[in-house]
Order: sequence, then structure tokens, then C-alpha cells
Amino acid sequence: MNIFLSVSFSSEVDEKGVVNAAYRSDLETLIQILEEEGHEVFCAPRLEGWKVTEHNPAHALKEDLKEIDKADLYVAILGEDISAGVQLETGYAVARDKRVVLACPNGIKLGWTNSALSSFDNISSVNFGFYDSLAHQILQTVIR
Amino acid sequence: MNIFLSVSFSSEVDEKGVVNAAYRSDLETLIQILEEEGHEVFCAPRLEGWKVTEHNPAHALKEDLKEIDKADLYVAILGEDISAGVQLETGYAVARDKRVVLACPNGIKLGWTNSALSSFDNISSVNFGFYDSLAHQILQTVIR
Repeated sequence: MNIFLSVSFSSEVDEKGVVNAAYRSDLETLIQILEEEGHEVFCAPRLEGWKVTEHNPAHALKEDLKEIDKADLYVAILGEDISAGVQLETGYAVARDKRVVLACPNGIKLGWTNSALSSFDNISSVNFGFYDSLAHQILQTVIR
Repeated sequence: MNIFLSVSFSSEVDEKGVVNAAYRSDLETLIQILEEEGHEVFCAPRLEGWKVTEHNPAHALKEDLKEIDKADLYVAILGEDISAGVQLETGYAVARDKRVVLACPNGIKLGWTNSALSSFDNISSVNFGFYDSLAHQILQTVIR
């Protein structure tokens, strides 16, 4: 199955545009578990070498959206702060009638929009503590 | 022409869920000018009586998305803070191949995602000082 992971990116980098090590490690854990189960995972920061692209961002964003078109499952990882990119991609995935999982870290309350969205048919929401447990919850969604 | 105005909503209300008076007045100015030129304008907070709906938000959000489907022009009003709803609706509008205007108040710098988006074909970005000038910029976009 093609899984698109939508994650905060440009807000998770240092002054050189490099993704924070702890965040990268969390995402790598998640991706590895999904891939070991035989799924193909798209995650923009990995594709970009864990560094924000300043070269032709419009092209990079268009390529991301094309990957959503190819996905069988779209997973948005939400956080305390709203991510402009994750929200945009989620709206795109909804319009393309993708199966959507909204993943929210424990203790974070969804705002009006994402809470409304989590009641849509075809959209599941999961709460998670650690990225390995999130991976297993995603896998359960895939099986269902 | 059917114009969909995507605006911050749940972050612009008081403790009773009522939209701040100054913000409401700005949006009413904008809507009035567009309607006086013969356009149909959809703006969720107006439809909801300038008050956040706590009753069945999923239904309200679905209805908003259906209005985007009907729109000839989609206008997102961006602000200093990222709006989860505006970003979601913008992604939806992009996926539905709508003509999009990103309207940004003067002095606010777009982040990575919205900046990338503003370079897409079919997407225009405008900067504005006041809502009446924004109305005229939108009308110019319509004419072009």
C-alpha cells in the first residue's frame, strides 16, 4: 500500500534548514516500521534529505501533491501548533477522496476544524504517545 | 460569479463563540462590495450568524466544502496566525482545480507552504491594507 505521511516540516528545522534530530529520529522510526510491513511510504522531509528546499518550493509542493494522488492511505501527523502544510495537504487529500488518518499526540486537543474532520466518513483519528505505537495503529487501520 | 471567501473563524470569536465586531465589520465591507458588483459570496461565519457552531461541526464543515465545489473563485484570507480551516479549505480548492486568490495583509510574510502555493498556475496572491481595497483587487482578478 502507498502511504503518504504528511508532517510539519519548515517549522521543525534549525537556522540552516536542517530537520531537528529528535524529530527526524521519530519519523524514521515510524517509516521503518511501516516499510518493514511491506508498505511504500512517502514523507517529504526524507525525500528532501531532511533539509528544507529553498530551490523552487512550488515545484516541491506540486510533487508532494502528486504523491497524495498516488496514495492509498493519507496520514496527517498533527501537533500542538497548526501546520500550514499539513492542513493544506489534508484538504487536498479529502478533496481527492483519500482514506485519511489524523494522528494526534496524546494530550493535544484538536481545534474546531480537525475535530469536525475526524467525524467524516473515511477519516479516522488516532491518539498516540510514541511513534512506534503510532506505526502499529496505522497498520491496524490499513488492515481494517 | 460564485465567490467562496475562506476566513479564520473559530480563532476570531469571544468566549461565547461570537465573532469579534471589528473583524465582522471588515468582512461585511468586503462582502458588500463584491455583492454590489453582482457576485454571489459564500462566507461561513455569515451563514452561521457570526457565531461558531457547536452543533454538528462535521456537517457544517461538509457544507462549506460543498460550497467550494460550487465556487468559480476561491479567496483565502490569510493572517499572521495560520488558520487550520483556511489551510484545509485551500488544499481542497487546489485539488478541485479552482481559481484561487491568496489574500495577505500588508506586512505579513507568507510561510513556506503558502509562498510555494502562490507560484502555482491558477493561483494569484494579493497584498492588502484594508478590506475595501481587497474587494477591488478581487474584482480585478475576476475581470482578468
